[in-house]
Amino acid sequence: MKLTILGCYAATPRSMTNPTAQVLELNGHMFLIDAGEGTQIQLRKNKIKFQRINHVFISHLHGDHFFGLIGLISTFSLLNRQSDLHVYGPKGIKEIILLQLRLSNSYTGYGLYFHELESKESEVVFEDERVIVRTIPLDHRVYTNGYLFESKPGDRKLRIGAIEDLGIDRCYYQKIKQGGNITLDDGTVVQNKDITYDPAPTESYAFCSDTYYSEAIVPIIKGVHALYHESTFLESEAHYTERTKHCTAKQAAAIAKLAEAEVLILGHYSTRYTDITAFKTEAEEVFDGTILNADDGVIFDL
Amino acid sequence: MKLTILGCYAATPRSMTNPTAQVLELNGHMFLIDAGEGTQIQLRKNKIKFQRINHVFISHLHGDHFFGLIGLISTFSLLNRQSDLHVYGPKGIKEIILLQLRLSNSYTGYGLYFHELESKESEVVFEDERVIVRTIPLDHRVYTNGYLFESKPGDRKLRIGAIEDLGIDRCYYQKIKQGGNITLDDGTVVQNKDITYDPAPTESYAFCSDTYYSEAIVPIIKGVHALYHESTFLESEAHYTERTKHCTAKQAAAIAKLAEAEVLILGHYSTRYTDITAFKTEAEEVFDGTILNADDGVIFDL
Repeated sequence: MKLTILGCYAATPRSMTNPTAQVLELNGHMFLIDAGEGTQIQLRKNKIKFQRINHVFISHLHGDHFFGLIGLISTFSLLNRQSDLHVYGPKGIKEIILLQLRLSNSYTGYGLYFHELESKESEVVFEDERVIVRTIPLDHRVYTNGYLFESKPGDRKLRIGAIEDLGIDRCYYQKIKQGGNITLDDGTVVQNKDITYDPAPTESYAFCSDTYYSEAIVPIIKGVHALYHESTFLESEAHYTERTKHCTAKQAAAIAKLAEAEVLILGHYSTRYTDITAFKTEAEEVFDGTILNADDGVIFDL
Repeated sequence: MKLTILGCYAATPRSMTNPTAQVLELNGHMFLIDAGEGTQIQLRKNKIKFQRINHVFISHLHGDHFFGLIGLISTFSLLNRQSDLHVYGPKGIKEIILLQLRLSNSYTGYGLYFHELESKESEVVFEDERVIVRTIPLDHRVYTNGYLFESKPGDRKLRIGAIEDLGIDRCYYQKIKQGGNITLDDGTVVQNKDITYDPAPTESYAFCSDTYYSEAIVPIIKGVHALYHESTFLESEAHYTERTKHCTAKQAAAIAKLAEAEVLILGHYSTRYTDITAFKTEAEEVFDGTILNADDGVIFDL
């Protein structure tokens, strides 16, 4: 599981700070999460093979989270993309994109599918044999979802030595990988756990931005491996959180603790702060796990 | 008259090249012409006091000329802008911007006025006591206008020595500046030209991008001081111009020659070229005046 931060600063893009966008690589997928203005430029700067992105997840329709989507969709067209692109986001995103494609007379040559969200309950929005993605309803000034990405367990791993000792034929290997017990010719039943190892552990990543402090999300993300949680403010500006519906680093840490996350990644910093290490320092007072400061261009191997 | 090139490359933004956007400072105005993705970042990088921009002129609704407009409009809101902003561009631009503001629940706190264009004839779109701006209908794949910016002549300048020798009272100075003749007490009529100098010469700038080769624009821009004319291709790729409705550098030079422009500024280069000096070389074969290569971040004092 690899996370590339393309941008993690709040509000407007600047010379040195980019609005929210990140790329999650998980079990063979490359997911784009949010797409602030300049996302396609950041993808190029970070040398990401962005034609591999087939799924884009937009949290909400504030400009710093989606103004870069139309540019990326257009560039895919100019690059003669063929494969389908799926966009998940709040109701309205389809109208915004299609209006611009229509007025510029530039419909895409590839399949462009919108999955518009309206539910206030967590729901599965994407699933295949490798990964499952659910929404995390957040509490912000407009309708907003975070996303929980989980890899699925692969096959169990064969204990070849034990299997050969028992004289089990190769034709049963697939059944064993899938967890089945085996009955030998003499009637003995061999338990699956005695001839396999557990599959590689699953991985999970929760993206939670933008949001007011909300313990309602804890049951959804309980036990998540890595949690990206917005921390727009430090404690000295905590009084802004209610009106703006954002969080402090300490609040992000409190959610990480309640959710028993292993890793907390802080981001969506207000551009009023010049030193982001203070976010980590404040979060450490609350959360004992690993705490990482997101920053533009940083790659986390999780 | 000062022109700052924020971006002058065709198609998609890249790490090192920006799509079309430029700032023209003329007779006290600061005009933004086109606004490709990343315009607000380029404004910051070039340290332009962009709150001074009150008028934005959009040539056409291809993404590389307007995808940065919504971000700029939103940023003006976040910066608590108070003064009106006027946007001139093809019909549809209002719907694009207002839809995004509505869905992000972020209407502007300042006056945002759209002047949508549909005419295929040149028309005056802005005029005050200092400047007049007209459209230049262009021939592109979608409805497109260039813009001609002209400063207006100021007052005539007094020849103080001659005026004092004639004993003309100060109360007539305003009348003289405005071109009036004076009748002396003895009935002699003093011609204005004998007691004034001509006002400072007017300045003019024509922005023509994107367009196929079109001599129809020549009468509109005849005698223009500085002409920015797109030159997407070199001669070796001239066969692309018809399908894409773009020009070569030589064609841009031919228009500059017919229009008797003093200065030709080349830009909107296809990103297939790594060396833009070749555009100037090819244009020089046709046009004898000054030829400038636009490039991102370059400032021309015209």
